[in-house]
Amino acid sequence: MEKVESYYLYGGWQEVWSHSSETLDCSMKFAIYLPEQAKEKKLPVLYYLSGLTCTEQNVMTKSGIQRYASEQGVIIVMPDTSPRGEQVADSPDYDLGQGAGFYVNATQSPWNKHYQMYHYILNELPHLIENNFPVTGKKSIMGHSMGGHGALVLALKNPEKYVSVSAFSPIVSPSSVAWGEKAFGHYLGENKQDWKKYDAVNLILEGNSVEHILVDQGLADNFYQSQLKTELLENACKQMNVNIDVRYHQNYDHSYYFIASFIEDHVRYHSERLNASLSQ
Amino acid sequence: MEKVESYYLYGGWQEVWSHSSETLDCSMKFAIYLPEQAKEKKLPVLYYLSGLTCTEQNVMTKSGIQRYASEQGVIIVMPDTSPRGEQVADSPDYDLGQGAGFYVNATQSPWNKHYQMYHYILNELPHLIENNFPVTGKKSIMGHSMGGHGALVLALKNPEKYVSVSAFSPIVSPSSVAWGEKAFGHYLGENKQDWKKYDAVNLILEGNSVEHILVDQGLADNFYQSQLKTELLENACKQMNVNIDVRYHQNYDHSYYFIASFIEDHVRYHSERLNASLSQ
Repeated sequence: MEKVESYYLYGGWQEVWSHSSETLDCSMKFAIYLPEQAKEKKLPVLYYLSGLTCTEQNVMTKSGIQRYASEQGVIIVMPDTSPRGEQVADSPDYDLGQGAGFYVNATQSPWNKHYQMYHYILNELPHLIENNFPVTGKKSIMGHSMGGHGALVLALKNPEKYVSVSAFSPIVSPSSVAWGEKAFGHYLGENKQDWKKYDAVNLILEGNSVEHILVDQGLADNFYQSQLKTELLENACKQMNVNIDVRYHQNYDHSYYFIASFIEDHVRYHSERLNASLSQ
Repeated sequence: MEKVESYYLYGGWQEVWSHSSETLDCSMKFAIYLPEQAKEKKLPVLYYLSGLTCTEQNVMTKSGIQRYASEQGVIIVMPDTSPRGEQVADSPDYDLGQGAGFYVNATQSPWNKHYQMYHYILNELPHLIENNFPVTGKKSIMGHSMGGHGALVLALKNPEKYVSVSAFSPIVSPSSVAWGEKAFGHYLGENKQDWKKYDAVNLILEGNSVEHILVDQGLADNFYQSQLKTELLENACKQMNVNIDVRYHQNYDHSYYFIASFIEDHVRYHSERLNASLSQ
C-alpha cells in the first residue's frame, strides 16, 4: 500500500492510497479523509460510493464532505468505481466497463476476471482500512447515483455490517432502467433472475430490510424519470414497512452541486447512528 | 451575453456566462453565484480572482464559497484569468499567456493586443455585472496566488472602488520573484520601473493604502518561500502603517483544499464590511 496524494484540510488529512487488490486483480486507488480526532482515537467510517465515470477524486474535490467529517469525527473512505488498468476489460461507453463497475460481482466473460466490485467494497477494502487506519470497525455507507445503488444493495444484503445507509439520486432499480439493463446484461448475463440480488427495490420486496433509509433526489435531475425512478423505492419501502425518508428538492440536478448542498445532513445522519451504536 | 451553464446549489444559482469583451478583444467567460436573497433585493458583490492555470471553473467547483455567499447574502463573481481563444497570443508555459494574465495591461507585442486584464477586472466586468444583475454597486475583491496579487494591486490602486480586500497565498511582490519577472518581462517590457505599479509591496511602500488587508498563507505551500514571500507584504505594511492580518497555517498547501478550509472567514470578512458600508 502506498500513499500517492496527501492534503491538509479542515484540520485533517485527505489522502489517496494505491494498493494491489486481490479481489479485482489490479492496482486500485482509494481516498480517505482522516479528521483531526483520528490522531487521538479510533473513529467510525462512512464509505462513499461514487457514480458513473467517477474516480475517488470527484467526491474528494467537489463535495465538501471533509468539513462535516471533521465536525462529526468520522473517517470517510471514497473508493474508485471499477477495476482499472490496461489489462482490465473496458468499453468505449461511459456506462460500461472502467468507471462503471456497478458494485456487482460479474459472472460473464470478459468482465468476470476483474469486475468484482461487490466483494471489493464489502470485504477487501474494509479489511484493508481496518488493518491500516485508526478505525473502530463500525461503518456506514452512502453513495451517489450508481453509487447510491451500490450503497443500498450492500446495506440491504448486509444489514449486520452497516450501521446506516443513505443515497443521493440513487439508481433504485437497475433491472428496470437502461443503465442497469445494459450493465447487468454484460456483467451478469441475460438471465434476469441473476440481476435481482443487485436491485434494491427487488431486495426490499423480497424481505430485505434496514432500520432506516435516507434519500435525497433533485427534481431537475435529467436522469430522475428515466434512470433513477425514486418512487419505485418509496413504494417498495411502503409496501414492506421499511422506514425511508425521501426528500425531493426543486431545481437541484444530478451534479456535485446538489451533493455539496445537502451532504452535511448525510454525514450528521450517519454520525448520529455510528455514535449511538458505539455507546451501546 | 449568453448563459452557458446553470446549477442550483445552497438555494441559489451558480451560472457561467459568455460575453464578447471589448477590452480584451475576445470572447470571455465568467462565473457568478446568485444566492436566494438576490431574488428579492440587490446585493453587494465579492470578486474572486483565480490563480495560474485556472479558469472560472476551479473556484466554483472546488472552494465551497457558495455556501457562505448564501449565508451572508453576497453575490460572488469569478472571472477567468486571461484572454482566451486561438487568436490570442499564448505560450507553452503554464505561467505565461493564456491562464496567466497576471491582471496587468500588457504594453508589449504580441501581448498588448488582448492582455488587458487590469482594465477588464476594474472596469468592463463590473460594468457588465452592474447592468445585468441585481447588485448594489458596492464591491470587494479577493484572490488566490496570482489572483491574490491581482486583488491586492486592484484594491491598493483603487481604494475608493473596493470596500475590502483579502487574499489566499498571494504573490505579494511579482517584481521580486521568478513568476512575476517572467510575466512582467513579457507583458510590460524590460524596464522594471513599469512593473512597480503592479507590485503590491511597492505600491504600499509608495504610500498606497487600504483600510485593512486579510491574508491566509499555508506553511506547507511549495511556493511560499520562492514565489509568494508573504513577509515582504507584512514588512511593507508595518513600515507604512497599513493594517494587515496575515494568518500562517501549519500543514496547509497551495491548493483549493486550503482555500476551502478558510474561505468562510473571507466571505464573512467582506460581508461585514460590505454591509457596514451599505448602512452608512
